[in-house]
Amino acid sequence: MLIDQDHKVQTNKWKIAPHVVKLKSSIIRDILKISSQPGVISFAGGLPAPELFPLDDMKWAMGKVIDTYGPAAIQYSVSRGLNELRELLAQRATKRGTPCEADNIQITAGGQQGLELVARAFIDRGDYILTELPTYVGAIQAFDYYQARYVPVEMDEEGMLIEQVKEKIEKYHPKLIYTVSNFQNPTGITMSLERRQQLIELAINYNIPIIDDNPYGDIRFSGEHLPTLKSIGGDVVVALRTFSKVLAPGLRIGWMNGPKNIMHYFEKVKQCTDLHTNTLCQYLIYEYVKAGKLEPHIEILKKDYRAKRDTMLKALQETFPSEIKWTKPNGGLFLWVTLPIHMSAKDLLPKAIEKKVAYVYGSPFHPNGGGENTMRLNFSNATHEGIVEGITRLAGLFKANM
Amino acid sequence: MLIDQDHKVQTNKWKIAPHVVKLKSSIIRDILKISSQPGVISFAGGLPAPELFPLDDMKWAMGKVIDTYGPAAIQYSVSRGLNELRELLAQRATKRGTPCEADNIQITAGGQQGLELVARAFIDRGDYILTELPTYVGAIQAFDYYQARYVPVEMDEEGMLIEQVKEKIEKYHPKLIYTVSNFQNPTGITMSLERRQQLIELAINYNIPIIDDNPYGDIRFSGEHLPTLKSIGGDVVVALRTFSKVLAPGLRIGWMNGPKNIMHYFEKVKQCTDLHTNTLCQYLIYEYVKAGKLEPHIEILKKDYRAKRDTMLKALQETFPSEIKWTKPNGGLFLWVTLPIHMSAKDLLPKAIEKKVAYVYGSPFHPNGGGENTMRLNFSNATHEGIVEGITRLAGLFKANM
Repeated sequence: MLIDQDHKVQTNKWKIAPHVVKLKSSIIRDILKISSQPGVISFAGGLPAPELFPLDDMKWAMGKVIDTYGPAAIQYSVSRGLNELRELLAQRATKRGTPCEADNIQITAGGQQGLELVARAFIDRGDYILTELPTYVGAIQAFDYYQARYVPVEMDEEGMLIEQVKEKIEKYHPKLIYTVSNFQNPTGITMSLERRQQLIELAINYNIPIIDDNPYGDIRFSGEHLPTLKSIGGDVVVALRTFSKVLAPGLRIGWMNGPKNIMHYFEKVKQCTDLHTNTLCQYLIYEYVKAGKLEPHIEILKKDYRAKRDTMLKALQETFPSEIKWTKPNGGLFLWVTLPIHMSAKDLLPKAIEKKVAYVYGSPFHPNGGGENTMRLNFSNATHEGIVEGITRLAGLFKANM
Repeated sequence: MLIDQDHKVQTNKWKIAPHVVKLKSSIIRDILKISSQPGVISFAGGLPAPELFPLDDMKWAMGKVIDTYGPAAIQYSVSRGLNELRELLAQRATKRGTPCEADNIQITAGGQQGLELVARAFIDRGDYILTELPTYVGAIQAFDYYQARYVPVEMDEEGMLIEQVKEKIEKYHPKLIYTVSNFQNPTGITMSLERRQQLIELAINYNIPIIDDNPYGDIRFSGEHLPTLKSIGGDVVVALRTFSKVLAPGLRIGWMNGPKNIMHYFEKVKQCTDLHTNTLCQYLIYEYVKAGKLEPHIEILKKDYRAKRDTMLKALQETFPSEIKWTKPNGGLFLWVTLPIHMSAKDLLPKAIEKKVAYVYGSPFHPNGGGENTMRLNFSNATHEGIVEGITRLAGLFKANM
């Protein structure tokens, strides 16, 4: 009865959509595969420190959820996300200076899906997106599927150079302005208050939505708190948030905060992509946050990451040759290293892996090419000893190749 | 410091992608909102019976997962899905007559994301997809985003009419053949063995992938087991499976089983849409299935749904006028009612809601229009008393409007 036809099926002639064939797979994920080999000190990932995950509280929340909600905890739910969770997130944002309501909130399957829904709702083939240079590689991936083009704007330690933003808006009429305004991935740079205000003025004048991808905003461990773009700009900003960095990425829960009258577009594109975000993890996070457990947990993260950042900065200072420069972030998970212009961080990676230390080279964060001499270092995932040892190994490698 | 600019932001002039503006939102989800009002007997949803969810076993599995995997249970994981779960699913499929390996499996966020990834990987604007008539409305939604066109093929009680399939392949050169071969949503029809073999022959001869959307295949409660399209056709079939109907939809865990040499395309498009499926629920399901709890649970479902189907068929037989026809499914969650040609199930729905009974009218399942005199009834979610009462009310309504 079975037809043994496998050898006759020419799957290699199946017509995959041409833009999918061209799509690059994530270089970071490829590097993660290598760097997860035993014994490798990895500065490559963007992984929160696993030893800090509040496992006992998660277990408590799971029991609470099943006992409280019963079957509803694992039943279908609405595409926008659980009302309870959206209410709670809106209240929390309002309390912290960003007035909003549940109707401004769309729950997403992590921050990446926020990017995906934005791309899905807005981007037509060939549209320009104005970004920082360098910019987050996951955003490039999400936008690439929709065949966006990029207008990258250079940064200094205060974020995007506003003169360039204006020039490029006038020249390219970008559909969206994409920024990671707080402790940027990959550079760790935070946009200054003045730049925030200037960027919003431009966005309003030219009526271009700002997509503020803000996974790290709550993890500031030095310097002064700055108001979010959303709290300054209101409806011109769509904020993308996530629990991945402040709680646990494996739950895949994030949210979008945008103008009420466009949220139904996100709901519509969410619906055809995966119906709704998983109900159980939404309830888990709802109970966890409602019980007041998130804020103390963030304090623990900050303390830990600040110490690790300090360890890494000290190790860089003590071991790296003076020709190499790096950023000094006030929060988040990453810093950015610039090697002398003739050196290639990509070419050096295999040698680093031989020395059992990994990083992500910077070129994939440059949507239109460039940045060969740059690299991103994560400081949240290794131990203090690992950081010192790994940076020392890198210093040796770079000195030997200068 | 805050710029109160909300009134200046003209979000109504933001350029949402034109095909998104045109996109219809799910009519089923709209009907679900109405039918979830208290006191309404709903035959509208596709919801599994919540009172059958194995909550105690879920709670057990959650504890097991946290104790066994610790932080890994809520950490980032790979885009393809957990290796353990993919291995287990491949072993289970192999044991049940569909030989495959972990490398054939991609984990998805429920069945809807399987449709989305297929659409994403294959469909270029204007591509034709051959479907059953009627066909699953969630698939239409997923494909509509990508601006597919449809070649619907009529069915009898054995599934698609193969002569029509052949004719339409030759005329339209469809990119994909989409079928719900087992207990179809919406009609409850199952493709016969002969038609399966004929469809596969055609698919192989013309080298067109068959997408077999198979959420209900395990829920057969009468008639003889038939081999799946995947088990007969091998590499010409991409099977879409899900735990939504056999366990719990709120966990949003499904999987795809396809030819090894095209799985990397699904992985790539999965990665840019949401990085990976939530880790916790993958582990939950892994532990649940590994412990041998799924198969006995499916037996419970079958017994319950068979009884409810019988109750509904009996009530239809006893109360519906002879001008109305309906299908008699051997499994799944739905049956399909055909009213006399001049009657509109859509126009009658508000009157049904007045009588506190809800269904889904059939036109949205017709991708190129038509089917106004048809409707889908779900028999898994109401009680036996509710089924009898609801069908009696519908009978009264239809008699009064004939």
